[in-house]
Amino acid sequence: MIKDIEGGVTAARGFRAAGIHAGIKKKKKDLAIVVSDQPAAVASVFTKNKVVAAPLVVDRMQIEKSPSARAIVVNSGNANACTGERGMTDAWCMVTTAAQALGLPAGEVLVSSTGVIGQPLPMDSVVSGINAAAPLLSREGHADAAEAIMTTDTFAKEAAVTVNLAGIEVAIGGMAKGSGMIAPNMATMLAFITTDARMSPSVMQGALRLAADRSFNRISVDGDTSTNDMVLLLANGAAGNREITSTSDRSYDAFYAALEQVLTRLSKMIVVDGEGATKFVEVRVVDAATEAVAAQAARAIANSNLVKTAIHGEDANWGRILAAVGYSGIDFNPDDTEISFGTLPILRRNYAVNFSEEEAKRVLSEKEIVITVSLHQGNASATFWTCDLSKAYVDINANYRT
Amino acid sequence: MIKDIEGGVTAARGFRAAGIHAGIKKKKKDLAIVVSDQPAAVASVFTKNKVVAAPLVVDRMQIEKSPSARAIVVNSGNANACTGERGMTDAWCMVTTAAQALGLPAGEVLVSSTGVIGQPLPMDSVVSGINAAAPLLSREGHADAAEAIMTTDTFAKEAAVTVNLAGIEVAIGGMAKGSGMIAPNMATMLAFITTDARMSPSVMQGALRLAADRSFNRISVDGDTSTNDMVLLLANGAAGNREITSTSDRSYDAFYAALEQVLTRLSKMIVVDGEGATKFVEVRVVDAATEAVAAQAARAIANSNLVKTAIHGEDANWGRILAAVGYSGIDFNPDDTEISFGTLPILRRNYAVNFSEEEAKRVLSEKEIVITVSLHQGNASATFWTCDLSKAYVDINANYRT
Repeated sequence: MIKDIEGGVTAARGFRAAGIHAGIKKKKKDLAIVVSDQPAAVASVFTKNKVVAAPLVVDRMQIEKSPSARAIVVNSGNANACTGERGMTDAWCMVTTAAQALGLPAGEVLVSSTGVIGQPLPMDSVVSGINAAAPLLSREGHADAAEAIMTTDTFAKEAAVTVNLAGIEVAIGGMAKGSGMIAPNMATMLAFITTDARMSPSVMQGALRLAADRSFNRISVDGDTSTNDMVLLLANGAAGNREITSTSDRSYDAFYAALEQVLTRLSKMIVVDGEGATKFVEVRVVDAATEAVAAQAARAIANSNLVKTAIHGEDANWGRILAAVGYSGIDFNPDDTEISFGTLPILRRNYAVNFSEEEAKRVLSEKEIVITVSLHQGNASATFWTCDLSKAYVDINANYRT
Repeated sequence: MIKDIEGGVTAARGFRAAGIHAGIKKKKKDLAIVVSDQPAAVASVFTKNKVVAAPLVVDRMQIEKSPSARAIVVNSGNANACTGERGMTDAWCMVTTAAQALGLPAGEVLVSSTGVIGQPLPMDSVVSGINAAAPLLSREGHADAAEAIMTTDTFAKEAAVTVNLAGIEVAIGGMAKGSGMIAPNMATMLAFITTDARMSPSVMQGALRLAADRSFNRISVDGDTSTNDMVLLLANGAAGNREITSTSDRSYDAFYAALEQVLTRLSKMIVVDGEGATKFVEVRVVDAATEAVAAQAARAIANSNLVKTAIHGEDANWGRILAAVGYSGIDFNPDDTEISFGTLPILRRNYAVNFSEEEAKRVLSEKEIVITVSLHQGNASATFWTCDLSKAYVDINANYRT
């Protein structure tokens, strides 16, 4: 039984957080710290972009040395990306400053940055911000922390659940930022998840990878991917459950389902907050030969500018959906393909098209739209979440730096 | 010596054309015929989309039977795509109607359609249109034909050159339509090229494939690809040159260069006319290990919504360009990468950034912008052409069918 609960990155026992205005941005909160009261096992997923920002390089080294951490420090307003040697020094300086302020070994601190690319971090603000935030850490600090990692996000993104593992209730909670540049493969997207469950790092890593592939990697705002994206999962074992050491443990499936639910909830919030988005679109590709085939087709539909503008215009242009499947690279038979909007059949086998434009318009005028594409070739399916493409998207992104 | 000349699809000797209003569209010209006075060798490039419109299926069968043709019939306003059995019957009916009207064997007629997907062709208009256009064929008809193949294009696209092959002057001319949905791999793009050179079909096919890869497949308006795209090249030998039968023939290189020039000129016109475009952008990736690597990186930059909106906003956001190279999938070292806008260096090795925002703004305020990315890994290069992403693009595509 997975239960949605209030809260975020401190919903699990033994975690505290804080978020403050450090002066990297002009006015808004821009620095967050999350701390575990005891060493926590770490799992991580990083951007696949070949251009990797300094904090990701630092975190990879930290996690490689030991998959255990006590703290995460995050700043927004500056990505510390494409900043060369200086960027590496600054990222390490964030680590050591936080270690000192929190009284922790430097090896237990992870860092993350998001914002403008190619400008050096204002280290005076970062250092004083870390020192100002450290004394504020509390169980209630989750909302401030979620606010402090936002960039062009219009609302803070938090989610939490509880789940019963063999009689012990554990919590999983987290926060994320997204908005622009969202695409499969972690596009300028940060998510920090905590749990009081006890798990071996290797099992946790597998669970996070799979859950991220089925949530954060199945959302799309504009198809671009970024230099700074990461998902971190910290598990401190404070719930006292028997450690999950294998995917065949009885408790593993329940934990995995709960984790995927938290990540999916955060993913959907990111899409809802997509830059300029006015509609939330769920793309379901069903009856596919494999999950990979379904995901590949769904990705092409969700990333298509032409599909997204048609949905913005509430136009039942199913030809663009079929064309997107056509160039997705999957093997399929167009004659067998069926498309529905909501529960309204639009395209049936052998190009049978017989729907009322009025009814289609009504379905497309909703805020939430489900597009279902059946390939009639097997039993696998995959779901993507995306938004429409509006003029506001152009406005926001034409003048991001200025 | 390649010389740009006036004219289009009838610039070469022995070709005539016509373009009329047949009633498929409400008011505008919508049906074109191009005829060669003698049998012409055919080369072709078709969409890579797995959803292939009926006329392409018909043309492939025609060309497979014999790579020779006398006529091309094109309608706009309706793509005859996703129309099932009925679509195939209609496409064959176009072939036989034109063959009868022109007094040609049905095996010598090719067909092409562009416009809305998923609706049956209005065959009464198509048939009467073919019969009305046939008597109007003339050397002067090229401009009407170029107009009749337009969809959301705002101007007709024609180009022609002459080139001297071992003392004989031959002409190559053509027309194209593009506008929305333009991306590498022939996205709702039609081009019909004619020449009075004499060439073997197999050599011509290789030349067309390579020239299309370096022109039509290097332009991008929105990254979507379509069901109907094709490029046809007809060579009727009326110039009387010695037949080019091999790529090592002395005349081959001159012919190829002239063909690429015609295709490149048409490609650039398509980008200039990109839906909602306000700027023409040339993306040059240089100093790459191979041409394929350069093209892959340039494609990612040219297709990036974030790069295109930044250019629309005249914002020197080089981080987005570097990030696009980063997710393009090529192997490269970001530390070695350099970026310039026009002649203005923006990013130098090791992330050295030192440019005047004012000067950058001045370069980006131009109508034509050249972005050069040096990978410092070899001697190969590739050029893509694209446009900015504006709010007008959203307007045009949100309500295309209505």
